[in-house]
Amino acid sequence: MSAVRYELIKKCGQTGARLGKVHTPHGSFDTPAFMPVGTQATVKGMSPEELKGINAQIILSNTYHLYMRPGEDIVKEAGGLHSFMNWNRPILTDSGGFQVFSLSDLRDIKEEGVTFKSHIDGSKHFITPEKAIEIQNDLGADIIMAFDECIPYPCEFEYAKKSLERTTRWAKRCKEAHKNTEKQALFGIVQGGIYKELREQSAKELLELDFPGYAIGGLSVGEPAQDMYDMLECTVPLLPEDKPRYLMGVGSPDYLIEGALRGIDMFDCVLPTRIGRNGTVLTSQGKMIIRDAKYARDFTPMDPECDCYACQNFSRAYIRHLLKAGEVLGIRLTTWHNLRFLLKLMENVRKAIMDDRLQDFRNEFFEAFGYNKITK
Amino acid sequence: MSAVRYELIKKCGQTGARLGKVHTPHGSFDTPAFMPVGTQATVKGMSPEELKGINAQIILSNTYHLYMRPGEDIVKEAGGLHSFMNWNRPILTDSGGFQVFSLSDLRDIKEEGVTFKSHIDGSKHFITPEKAIEIQNDLGADIIMAFDECIPYPCEFEYAKKSLERTTRWAKRCKEAHKNTEKQALFGIVQGGIYKELREQSAKELLELDFPGYAIGGLSVGEPAQDMYDMLECTVPLLPEDKPRYLMGVGSPDYLIEGALRGIDMFDCVLPTRIGRNGTVLTSQGKMIIRDAKYARDFTPMDPECDCYACQNFSRAYIRHLLKAGEVLGIRLTTWHNLRFLLKLMENVRKAIMDDRLQDFRNEFFEAFGYNKITK
Repeated sequence: MSAVRYELIKKCGQTGARLGKVHTPHGSFDTPAFMPVGTQATVKGMSPEELKGINAQIILSNTYHLYMRPGEDIVKEAGGLHSFMNWNRPILTDSGGFQVFSLSDLRDIKEEGVTFKSHIDGSKHFITPEKAIEIQNDLGADIIMAFDECIPYPCEFEYAKKSLERTTRWAKRCKEAHKNTEKQALFGIVQGGIYKELREQSAKELLELDFPGYAIGGLSVGEPAQDMYDMLECTVPLLPEDKPRYLMGVGSPDYLIEGALRGIDMFDCVLPTRIGRNGTVLTSQGKMIIRDAKYARDFTPMDPECDCYACQNFSRAYIRHLLKAGEVLGIRLTTWHNLRFLLKLMENVRKAIMDDRLQDFRNEFFEAFGYNKITK
Repeated sequence: MSAVRYELIKKCGQTGARLGKVHTPHGSFDTPAFMPVGTQATVKGMSPEELKGINAQIILSNTYHLYMRPGEDIVKEAGGLHSFMNWNRPILTDSGGFQVFSLSDLRDIKEEGVTFKSHIDGSKHFITPEKAIEIQNDLGADIIMAFDECIPYPCEFEYAKKSLERTTRWAKRCKEAHKNTEKQALFGIVQGGIYKELREQSAKELLELDFPGYAIGGLSVGEPAQDMYDMLECTVPLLPEDKPRYLMGVGSPDYLIEGALRGIDMFDCVLPTRIGRNGTVLTSQGKMIIRDAKYARDFTPMDPECDCYACQNFSRAYIRHLLKAGEVLGIRLTTWHNLRFLLKLMENVRKAIMDDRLQDFRNEFFEAFGYNKITK
């Protein structure tokens, strides 16, 4: 039996979006779900208890970073990632592929694997699909990912095709190398750039390998939104109904809602934590640059509609002061709020599916957030 | 009636140290007390709730910094510092004197006041005793401090004498300028370098002004420990029994205990937060450089005897990883622990006074912490 199981609760009568639950060895999470990113075995600025307090049900951590530092051997010796970082709910680790291709220097891609230099100390490393799985087995996350090549945007058809075919061969090797199927579920990753026939080819090839879940990778990498939606619309219907579907690297409010509308169950992104550290917060009325001088004497909460600790206890003026003064509490509060904003958004998405009105919810949210003004 | 009142609970039969309570408009705190420092209206890395959770009963904030940023007018408009930073327990603000003399450039000391340049933007400012009180009235702390000159160490007798006499004249002007005596208690500051007769002169002059509390300033600025102890031994007996005594800028475990032994009620220092950010933690067995490679695979708590959140939930190996990786949670956890360590130390000091055994406690603590080895 697979380590994770998808339970479909209902489909939205208005849109077909799915409400469900994913059951893992460390408990269940409700879908559609947003997964906060804890790159280096910590969601930047947040404690595990704070994450639980804002209803984070699953987090993601990055294999590439943990392999580099502290090293998967130390995490394994600690009893795995859950124990190391004191998080007893589900964890997903990526394969490291995306970081190898985006962060490291001088990468050299061969059929056998990828040679690259560390972004930390310049040391040389060689990662194969087997090695990516071995590291993830040591880390011990509930969901692990096949090692793939994430191609840039734009990318020629021919290269995208060659790359996805290699990604399929690597996925097969990952599956063969995976030793811990009872406790960790290995997901395959559909690639293919923005070419419909390549997405279809990739999905079909991966389906033959029968993974317990499927991700859609290589999107939200700079392509127009409509291209992403098109790719989802041609790929999702090919994926099995009884398995979770994960859209990688997506976390802006519009993409989360549009993804859920198209049948996606899981999302992750550094957006809420990253923009929070830079002083931008998400509110029910749109983005707010809290560092702006106009908030210097604004003693209202960042988002009066928000139930988070930051909005319940501190003013825009105070948080602006903390950020201007370089104080840690400032980035803690903006991060806390942004994560809660997206997790609450997903709660609302799930409720809208339950109530058969996700399209209405989408329209109301877009109007209030200001997306309609932006796109006009 | 003064805004604060000191209640003597008992004296240690073994040492004469005092156990007491200070009552303020925002509640009481037990003494001897350590006050965590929240320079910029935040104790670095900590939320107000976390501070309450480790039994911080009063905190200190810095007038100089708040005057510079965000400006005392904004804090006043927020309803004062308690409201601005969401801390409803007692607060003490210093006068800004120490920072004017230690942080700013090109200061020019005249009888009327001090001209100096901001450490942030180089802007020119002129602070008088009256201005220091006006700013502190706007900030609204429960205890505010007279504007003094904190002389460096070493300092010639003649300058130290001239300076303390000006500090007395400034203290008189501060008292006359203080408009909010019902809600804020103004403390005088005894100066005089390491000269006994000057300390005595300063104390006597200030006593004539009848402040509701007295601080001892200009110590722990580089002089040998014995000089500090000598100054306490000649100054404290001159101070009134029915008012709180505050030793400024002191926060190492040995100084806290030795100060309490000599009749001090209040202490403050950036030491626990500052060394925590640099990766040094205080433990019952002495200081620990948690960044050291030897802790890379040490899965025990920082201090197995500690009851703080960090020690109850995370290992040395994990915290070391966080610090090496530059993660905010790392400095949060070391800060949290160090503050709890000192606040717990003060709880133990108070218990030892209650049990008439502060000298025994001092000897046991020094032995376990390793101070005896260091001084041998």
